[in-house]
Amino acid sequence: MATAGKVIKCKAAVAWEAGKPLSIEEVEVAPPQAMEVRVKILFTALCHTDVYFWEAKGQTPVFPRIFGHEAGGIVESVGEGVTELAPGDHVLPVFTGECKECPHCKSAESNMCDLLRINTDRGVMLSDGKSRFSIDGKPIYHFVGTSTFSEYTVLHVGCVAKINPEAPLDKVCVLSCGISTGLGASINVAKPPKGSTVAIFGLGAVGLAAAEGARIAGASRIIGIDLNANRFEEARKFGCTEFVNPKDHNKPVQEVLIEMTNGGVDRSVECTGNINAMIQAFECVHDGWGVAVLVGVPHKDAEFKTHPMNFLNERTLKGTFFGNFKPRTDLPNVVEMYMKKELEVEKFITHSVPFSEINKAFDLMAKGEGIRCIIRMEN
Amino acid sequence: MATAGKVIKCKAAVAWEAGKPLSIEEVEVAPPQAMEVRVKILFTALCHTDVYFWEAKGQTPVFPRIFGHEAGGIVESVGEGVTELAPGDHVLPVFTGECKECPHCKSAESNMCDLLRINTDRGVMLSDGKSRFSIDGKPIYHFVGTSTFSEYTVLHVGCVAKINPEAPLDKVCVLSCGISTGLGASINVAKPPKGSTVAIFGLGAVGLAAAEGARIAGASRIIGIDLNANRFEEARKFGCTEFVNPKDHNKPVQEVLIEMTNGGVDRSVECTGNINAMIQAFECVHDGWGVAVLVGVPHKDAEFKTHPMNFLNERTLKGTFFGNFKPRTDLPNVVEMYMKKELEVEKFITHSVPFSEINKAFDLMAKGEGIRCIIRMEN
Ligand SMILES: NC(=O)c1ccc[n+]([C@@H]2O[C@H](COP(=O)([O-])OP(=O)(O)OC[C@H]3O[C@@H](n4cnc5c(N)ncnc54)[C@H](O)[C@@H]3O)[C@@H](O)[C@H]2O)c1
Ligand SMILES: NC(=O)c1ccc[n+]([C@@H]2O[C@H](COP(=O)([O-])OP(=O)(O)OC[C@H]3O[C@@H](n4cnc5c(N)ncnc54)[C@H](O)[C@@H]3O)[C@@H](O)[C@H]2O)c1
Ligand SMILES: [Zn+2]
Ligand SMILES: [Zn+2]
Ligand SMILES: [Zn+2]
Ligand SMILES: [Zn+2]
Repeated sequence: MATAGKVIKCKAAVAWEAGKPLSIEEVEVAPPQAMEVRVKILFTALCHTDVYFWEAKGQTPVFPRIFGHEAGGIVESVGEGVTELAPGDHVLPVFTGECKECPHCKSAESNMCDLLRINTDRGVMLSDGKSRFSIDGKPIYHFVGTSTFSEYTVLHVGCVAKINPEAPLDKVCVLSCGISTGLGASINVAKPPKGSTVAIFGLGAVGLAAAEGARIAGASRIIGIDLNANRFEEARKFGCTEFVNPKDHNKPVQEVLIEMTNGGVDRSVECTGNINAMIQAFECVHDGWGVAVLVGVPHKDAEFKTHPMNFLNERTLKGTFFGNFKPRTDLPNVVEMYMKKELEVEKFITHSVPFSEINKAFDLMAKGEGIRCIIRMEN
Repeated sequence: MATAGKVIKCKAAVAWEAGKPLSIEEVEVAPPQAMEVRVKILFTALCHTDVYFWEAKGQTPVFPRIFGHEAGGIVESVGEGVTELAPGDHVLPVFTGECKECPHCKSAESNMCDLLRINTDRGVMLSDGKSRFSIDGKPIYHFVGTSTFSEYTVLHVGCVAKINPEAPLDKVCVLSCGISTGLGASINVAKPPKGSTVAIFGLGAVGLAAAEGARIAGASRIIGIDLNANRFEEARKFGCTEFVNPKDHNKPVQEVLIEMTNGGVDRSVECTGNINAMIQAFECVHDGWGVAVLVGVPHKDAEFKTHPMNFLNERTLKGTFFGNFKPRTDLPNVVEMYMKKELEVEKFITHSVPFSEINKAFDLMAKGEGIRCIIRMEN
């Protein structure tokens, strides 16, 4: 392309300060260096993780910064040494990468790449410790290696999944974070057997995707647990068959679930980030075969506590990161699940705004309205 | 046989009081009732669990009682409805049973039978709530449904594994408890991949069997951890390649192991019953793929505590009971492993005494000498 090797001037939504509305600015985007690619973003979505680091409460503040990590786009140009991607490829940026060479990438079981594992504090590119974004020569920092709230962004090649060019980017863009996380937590980690009973703690985007995954895997009872009863009606569309609000009971919710299921659920998936829900999700699984999967990101001072006999009685507890999907290897297949209509993505998308109104997406999330809001870069 | 249907008078080692030496008495053993079998015990061994309940410190005292649960014998007669066993069959009694009909027995994953799961407080038979042992008409209580410190004993058919009659009972008798537990914890639950690194916490009979299991599974580094350095030399015979004594280090043993292994062990198996070792065994496994297995029976007030991020980073924690072997279905195959020389049993047997000297086995265990002491019923 004509722009290859040159600086691109384009619009980006810059967060100048923690918690202040983003402002659309003209930024300069440097060309990709070795093992990097520059991507034209077409659609992006807002996820809680953007909001946490934008609010920067108890997080290292890194500003000015360009947020955004759920997105879909097209490769504009590639840096030296990039052989797996070429201009024109349709891609999903991913906040956690896959170098394909470290022990984690080589292990069939892990997706926690030593080199490109999510790093929320770093605001620069790995190779040279510099930002590719600037305004008047002053750096604007990156976020989790993706920074998709920009018309163009630069990523390490290991953080870019090449997908089927026929997949509609305005839909599949939401597959690059929370939805794949919940889906993978169920289908890759909890693996509920056909006809089994699954408890899903927390019915946000991640929990709804976990319910959808349990449904796809063939679970027949899917019990949604949330402190917010407003979530329940919506959750039926994602396969939930029953609901429990811990506030409606005067005994621990694990006891309620054990009674409802004659001894405990076969699988549980925790998607809240709340430590009590993590313990409940573990203690409600059936002895002998129950498996509990933790997905929510806990408070840094949280402590997981339980009686060790709960393990001895043959319960399993696991955690997962990005649903155990290897981003470059597996995400294209998740897109294929959508193309084959095995996975419905539309129902996760409840709102859409043009790029100029990106702050509306923040408002919707603050009010807890909807699941995912798509931000259209071009109109 | 001529004795079928009749009371048998024979010798048994009776524990009249907690912590007092056993005394060999003549007892009357009633014939087996429906779904029961009467077995002539030829060899039995002493396990810690016998000692715990004989000492009855913090346990419900049930006396007078006949202890013993690691043993081998021959079926003398069978009660009504017993079709899978016949007089003359060679068998191993098992402290935890398999009814083959409950949800646990029907699940491929569990061995925690609803009906016959270990019950250390019950001193009587399930069917009629009565003991089959008596002296002068007064009941002598059973222990974990086995009571093998008697020339004849009565068991529920679900607590009897029929084995290859060519297997030497003086050897394979030790497979009915601790050794299968450790072996199964490794081969059925931890499942170390070939070439992997395994940490074994606690090098008693169970831990040594877990090391042996890791070796059989093809682990190439097997690190034994014990507070008692006297265990280390012996443990080499069971596959341990390296040793760590937590007392030799002034940092937590999980950190020592993480340094020794460049990030953590692939699998760990905890065989101590100590809550600190349980937490260490979990925290020393590698992120991304590590699996920790708890085997030791914890103190009733113990609390397992860890930061939930240790799970989120894709570590797995499981517990197992009797190494996940289904007693009737799987124990015959463990015996076959011995027959095919895949599993060495002799090295676990360090002592042997005649029945009349059974209290010597208790003395050896109190002194921590050896691994297993065989008690010969006939000479
Ligand atoms: N492991 C990963 O790779 C990964 C990836 C993305 C998100 N996450 C984490 O997943 C979690 C869920 O994300 P989300 O976007 O769906 O969040 P969300 O805030 O939209 O949804 C969370 C839901 O949990 C409910 N909840 C909170 N505490 C609860 C409790 N004690 N019991 C029952 N319900 C409770 C809330 O009412 C809410 O409906 C977050 O912690 C997020 O950080 C993890
Ligand atoms: N889950 C089951 O089905 C099952 C079956 C049989 C035995 N068990 C349990 O397995 C455990 C081991 O049994 P055993 O007969 O081998 O016991 P044992 O007493 O012979 O051996 C335990 C070893 O652990 C060591 N140890 C204790 N605390 C330690 C610590 N903090 N760090 C490192 N080493 C430590 C001791 O020095 C000892 O060598 C016991 O708790 C027993 O009750 C469980
Ligand atoms: Zn990697
Ligand atoms: Zn996200
Ligand atoms: Zn059963
Ligand atoms: Zn035992």
